[in-house]
Amino acid sequence: MEQISSVNNKLIKNLAKLKQKKYRGETGLYIIEGFHLVQEALKAGHKYVYLLGTAEALTQAKDNYHVDLTTSKIVTINNAIARHLSSTKNSQNIFMVLKVSEPKNFSFNYGKWVLLDQLSDPGNVGTIIRTADAANFNGVILAPQSVDLYNPKTQRAMQGSQFHIDLITQDLPDVIGTFHSNAIPVYSSMLDHSAKQLQNFAPLPQLGLVIGNEAHGVSKEIAHLCDERLYIPIKGQAESLNAAVAAGIIIYHFA
Amino acid sequence: MEQISSVNNKLIKNLAKLKQKKYRGETGLYIIEGFHLVQEALKAGHKYVYLLGTAEALTQAKDNYHVDLTTSKIVTINNAIARHLSSTKNSQNIFMVLKVSEPKNFSFNYGKWVLLDQLSDPGNVGTIIRTADAANFNGVILAPQSVDLYNPKTQRAMQGSQFHIDLITQDLPDVIGTFHSNAIPVYSSMLDHSAKQLQNFAPLPQLGLVIGNEAHGVSKEIAHLCDERLYIPIKGQAESLNAAVAAGIIIYHFA
Repeated sequence: MEQISSVNNKLIKNLAKLKQKKYRGETGLYIIEGFHLVQEALKAGHKYVYLLGTAEALTQAKDNYHVDLTTSKIVTINNAIARHLSSTKNSQNIFMVLKVSEPKNFSFNYGKWVLLDQLSDPGNVGTIIRTADAANFNGVILAPQSVDLYNPKTQRAMQGSQFHIDLITQDLPDVIGTFHSNAIPVYSSMLDHSAKQLQNFAPLPQLGLVIGNEAHGVSKEIAHLCDERLYIPIKGQAESLNAAVAAGIIIYHFA
Repeated sequence: MEQISSVNNKLIKNLAKLKQKKYRGETGLYIIEGFHLVQEALKAGHKYVYLLGTAEALTQAKDNYHVDLTTSKIVTINNAIARHLSSTKNSQNIFMVLKVSEPKNFSFNYGKWVLLDQLSDPGNVGTIIRTADAANFNGVILAPQSVDLYNPKTQRAMQGSQFHIDLITQDLPDVIGTFHSNAIPVYSSMLDHSAKQLQNFAPLPQLGLVIGNEAHGVSKEIAHLCDERLYIPIKGQAESLNAAVAAGIIIYHFA
């Protein structure tokens, strides 16, 4: 166990940089925080690079999750360092540094998948992945232009679902081709009435479901590759639904 | 038209304080920002106290929404002041100060209503109100312990729905009594399996639908007053759904 008491410590400075995509790319590492996510990572059997926490938080991790505090991967920090590492207002003073997963190529096996076409809000991406998990979808495939999976806000919004279902970053035309060569339909959610109303679709055992960018929806190129296009009818005066809410309604329709 | 160029100007200092509940309570005023919300307030015919913007933003408001820039309610500000007034990262440099509505008592007329029991996240409350509007519900009733309607984050997440549907703050037991005396059922959404699955409920033309706190759900006291208790089945490994997503799935089920 190491003890660090200065925010200017080199390790701390480097780990704080993991909040930025550039440094995650350079190091192949990312950081998560909070007891729930740390517990989910441990439950999933993930090997961590560091577990950092205040003495109190580490003791809690030991008592509740049987973490061995005697290894060199454990780093005791103080409240000032916790605030420095945290991406939240109210830090729980516990952080885990993990290795970014090796990129996987999508190979269709079975089931239902969400395809995210250039979503830009980290919270939305995380929330949609959490919803796909709750609905027992097999995984989520992100277009490379979508927000980064390892963004701390995305990680927080996933609430552990990052350790439950398959998450793949790949060009969507490739992925849609794979669905089609397995004779599995791909539906695209639209923002406008050029499509069929959601309630006209029956649930399916196997499916690809494309969710589009918050402001612009699914790109034309991708929508044209899809077998069906669907939309949620807006019945009141609101112009649209929140992207994560809309995705939730569609995902649960097919759950 | 007034022109202000210092963030230390007394009016600016006072208006910046409207981001805090305390000052909204003292003054009876609140502040909204961004072109979309300003446009929605104008469309709804709301009389504003001030419209503030950079020269460029005000010209845009004049060109697109026919705002009369010659009145004393118009205040030209600079970018530094816009940043000071803003609650967002990327300010659109346009702000409107409005009077908080007089409190209304709920009197059931017709239709479907969402009842919010002590929600704590301003973004969730705003998003649920936006969803209720999209689903053509008549209004949303907030327990007094819920997050403040005039919080800038709530206002932003409502995306204009605050100008479309009825929003009432009132004790929920009173409100549920009013539903019952009109022979209208009230359903409570639950986080656990002590309830009936959502898909077993048929849509109804008139309904009260209680949504609970993000972490603790609907309080026992309120759940006991309800005619039915329902839940969304979690089919995967996620422990729960995001509160605004769960509310969206339920609201659209009854839309």
